[in-house]
Amino acid sequence: MSELVFVGIGLYDEKDLSLRAVEEIKSADKVFAELYTSLLPAFNVKRLETLVGKKVVVVSRKILEDDEGRQILQETKGGKVVFLVPGDPLIATTHVDLRIRAEKMGVKTRIVHGASIISAVIGLTGLQNYKFGRSVTVPFLENSVVADTSYRVVMENRQRGLHTLCFLDLKAEEKRHMTVKEGLRILLEVEEREKKEVVTSKTLAVGVARAGAPNFCIKADYVKDLLQHNFGDPPHALVFPGKLHFMEAEALVSLAGAPRKILEMT
Amino acid sequence: MSELVFVGIGLYDEKDLSLRAVEEIKSADKVFAELYTSLLPAFNVKRLETLVGKKVVVVSRKILEDDEGRQILQETKGGKVVFLVPGDPLIATTHVDLRIRAEKMGVKTRIVHGASIISAVIGLTGLQNYKFGRSVTVPFLENSVVADTSYRVVMENRQRGLHTLCFLDLKAEEKRHMTVKEGLRILLEVEEREKKEVVTSKTLAVGVARAGAPNFCIKADYVKDLLQHNFGDPPHALVFPGKLHFMEAEALVSLAGAPRKILEMT
Repeated sequence: MSELVFVGIGLYDEKDLSLRAVEEIKSADKVFAELYTSLLPAFNVKRLETLVGKKVVVVSRKILEDDEGRQILQETKGGKVVFLVPGDPLIATTHVDLRIRAEKMGVKTRIVHGASIISAVIGLTGLQNYKFGRSVTVPFLENSVVADTSYRVVMENRQRGLHTLCFLDLKAEEKRHMTVKEGLRILLEVEEREKKEVVTSKTLAVGVARAGAPNFCIKADYVKDLLQHNFGDPPHALVFPGKLHFMEAEALVSLAGAPRKILEMT
Repeated sequence: MSELVFVGIGLYDEKDLSLRAVEEIKSADKVFAELYTSLLPAFNVKRLETLVGKKVVVVSRKILEDDEGRQILQETKGGKVVFLVPGDPLIATTHVDLRIRAEKMGVKTRIVHGASIISAVIGLTGLQNYKFGRSVTVPFLENSVVADTSYRVVMENRQRGLHTLCFLDLKAEEKRHMTVKEGLRILLEVEEREKKEVVTSKTLAVGVARAGAPNFCIKADYVKDLLQHNFGDPPHALVFPGKLHFMEAEALVSLAGAPRKILEMT
């Protein structure tokens, strides 16, 4: 049987792999990994290879997207291929595409889920899951049209009282990972043009760094103060709270060091 | 040092635990688990106890909510307590509350993230993450006001072209878990009153059963046909797609058996 198993690596290092993930890797005929859709701060391929007793082939975005996963799909012929992906594996659109192509070729696909940045950031903030509107990525300024989109998404969510989770752009090949500070500055630039009071120096925001890492960092504050906060190494993410329930405000104060005066806003 | 570590169990059984989670449990002074916020289809406490060589105390909702986690917090005194929670652990509001109380008492808290139903269902459908609006729970009909909320959330998201992830209610103590069929019927009842064409027999929806289980089931179809589909054992979830991108429609056809004519809708 030809089989392609998408395995989520999780958020930080190879110890984020589930017991099931390790079993799947050990019984695979071939193991691929991509490490460009998210940054795993302490993931080490050599350590993983030692752990599972198997060679792991790291594929670049260029290889995966240019050859449409052909290299991976060829290896499934009559065997089992494991494809390791940061976070929960099918969140990245490019992998959904690979999965569809595999199924169309008659390759059976399975998923071993992993911890995702989505639920991790929501959980770390203490904000309520069902109050998050759509999420969005703040892109590097090379593409200003799309930065306008992220501004608009924050605005639309806030108008409905909802929180916004903003992923921050990365260019893994260039080792560029947008920081909280850069993300805020990009949104403040859009604010200067749009002037809709969506992201101003007085807006409450939450910066999260290294979600899932032992040395994760979370800080809720007004944008002008958040710009001064040192979040340390990437990856970073941003949350713009909408209307806060009292318990959410208390969570931001207790768990994210928000100024106590936000308790009066609820 | 007093320490409380929230550990996500993941979605299906004890093999969903990460290597880090197992390490944390093995080095804990006391291990608690709650199994009522989500159903883990094949999780077995005895097997887990054998795996980690440690006693695991299962706490009920009643105990946890009535005593405000006192039992757990007391055990942290000068030691390390691990609290096992289905999915990613801090998504449930009641645990955020426990975390805040712990921090206020000076107990250090940490989180070991696990696979969450949120990213799992998004990934299984092949729909794009950033096109999901806010999510909502369809409640058992005992509480019809709240069923109206879930109808309204689907409507508001769809008006903006966004998808809706609907969690389905559960009453773990009574072993009641809402099925896709029950969820659809509840929403169709609201439709009869509201008549806003949000959930009719012709609405496209996606049912997901046992996300994260080897025998997971996913089916996209019009509501009238979805009502006939046998999804098998719980837990179930529902997704109402908004405006579909061509690749999303193709994902629903290839990965969820949607009728091919939805390709013409994009």
